[in-house]
Amino acid sequence: MRTEGLSINLATVRQQFDLKSGIAAYVKQGVRGISPWRDHVQAIGAAEAGRILRDNGMRVTGYCRGGLFPAADAAGRQAAIDDNLKMIDEAAAIGADCIVLIGGGLPKGSRDIAGARRMFADGMAAILPAARAAKVPLAIEALHPMYAADRGCISTLAEALDLAEALGEGTGVVVDAYHLWWAPDLANQIARAKGRILAHHICDWLVPTKDLLLDRGMMGDGVIDLPAIRRMVESAGFTGYQEVEIFSAENWWKRPGDEVIRTCIERFNTVC
Amino acid sequence: MRTEGLSINLATVRQQFDLKSGIAAYVKQGVRGISPWRDHVQAIGAAEAGRILRDNGMRVTGYCRGGLFPAADAAGRQAAIDDNLKMIDEAAAIGADCIVLIGGGLPKGSRDIAGARRMFADGMAAILPAARAAKVPLAIEALHPMYAADRGCISTLAEALDLAEALGEGTGVVVDAYHLWWAPDLANQIARAKGRILAHHICDWLVPTKDLLLDRGMMGDGVIDLPAIRRMVESAGFTGYQEVEIFSAENWWKRPGDEVIRTCIERFNTVC
Repeated sequence: MRTEGLSINLATVRQQFDLKSGIAAYVKQGVRGISPWRDHVQAIGAAEAGRILRDNGMRVTGYCRGGLFPAADAAGRQAAIDDNLKMIDEAAAIGADCIVLIGGGLPKGSRDIAGARRMFADGMAAILPAARAAKVPLAIEALHPMYAADRGCISTLAEALDLAEALGEGTGVVVDAYHLWWAPDLANQIARAKGRILAHHICDWLVPTKDLLLDRGMMGDGVIDLPAIRRMVESAGFTGYQEVEIFSAENWWKRPGDEVIRTCIERFNTVC
Repeated sequence: MRTEGLSINLATVRQQFDLKSGIAAYVKQGVRGISPWRDHVQAIGAAEAGRILRDNGMRVTGYCRGGLFPAADAAGRQAAIDDNLKMIDEAAAIGADCIVLIGGGLPKGSRDIAGARRMFADGMAAILPAARAAKVPLAIEALHPMYAADRGCISTLAEALDLAEALGEGTGVVVDAYHLWWAPDLANQIARAKGRILAHHICDWLVPTKDLLLDRGMMGDGVIDLPAIRRMVESAGFTGYQEVEIFSAENWWKRPGDEVIRTCIERFNTVC
């Protein structure tokens, strides 16, 4: 079955593999797209991670995850900026197509969601010069509104695009089917994203969804019309990798890693 | 403490009271606004329910809940329409300010969210003449996007307003803080809702939220800026009741009903 164009976010097999064993397992089944998280890279250092990725001919479709700029005080906001600057260096070392930035939640005690969104915009602006210099694009990922309070205050593709348009060169967006599938204006917003799509994430929305964070579904097991969203993304000029990102504490994280990868490949061919 | 302007949705004390005992408990603490669900009314019949509500001087700020028009086949869609017509009669009998309509989920096996939204619009159009004749306004309640698949496919106030504007007289919207607080364009959409707001629901978004459906918070215990939303609603011309609607399986549904009512009154005065 076809594996070109398929990337698997390493969080999908977080419980089964580290970076090195994950790459080996991917390669065994012909998967050459990967998106690691910072803990995966930091465990062995970015230089070593980059070497292993390059030696195995892996395409790094994203590096997860930065952003998270809102904080209760200036020191906290600066710490977030510093950490994102460090992440840019790591992303350059591993040759990532982009850094994935999520909004972050409300600072402790805050009820000011608009303020959190401004802090995100300010944080992005602060790291953008370094990102441009390192040639590491910043991809804003709008998260599902159920994460607005504690994880990702950027909740719609429209907001992400407003920001990317305002900040310009070196910025763009992630189109993640799980976060965006419900949006009534999705087709229009994806069309508007033309030239700014840096990554396309896929998985599925299960009915019922038993946990807000860790009950994402394999493509085909839920209600998202993934082919329709893919058509929108391709019409907007993005023909790059589809990246499978599944957090599934009670199902996929408990299965053998090779089975998860094999299932991703099958569904990529039959569903997406 | 002030109780004028406060309504308590009877689902907030669903485990503690039926309609009759709930009214008695409300009246004891001076609360005269109530919003019952269909099971509350049908348990004693709409005529008897109306009599008790009137005899106690209760203001019925809404009747929960209709809509749910999407279905897999024509017979299912007609059954939903028939049930909503029956609900209109009940609403008239109990003197409800409005019927609360939610979108309903995707029909079984469907991945067509746009199609479900069209079925909702068609269902509303089908019952509107009867609603107008009975002078029962139809209030569209956009639900949080996390319910789009299985409960409420109308996910944004913008969509609800598009529909109310298209359908015209006898229709309007609910502004529910829990479902809408995260929306980046909330202030604009509420301003746009001027003259169409039929109800204002309040509760709070808890961090963490442990259950998608049954872990709503008491006002003040979460992150929603309820005074800000109330100001938007009042600026849009709605100065009616604030209706507390809390589904809380592990907390408020387990406490004594009188304590829940007392807490609603306190928070209404100190938070909202």
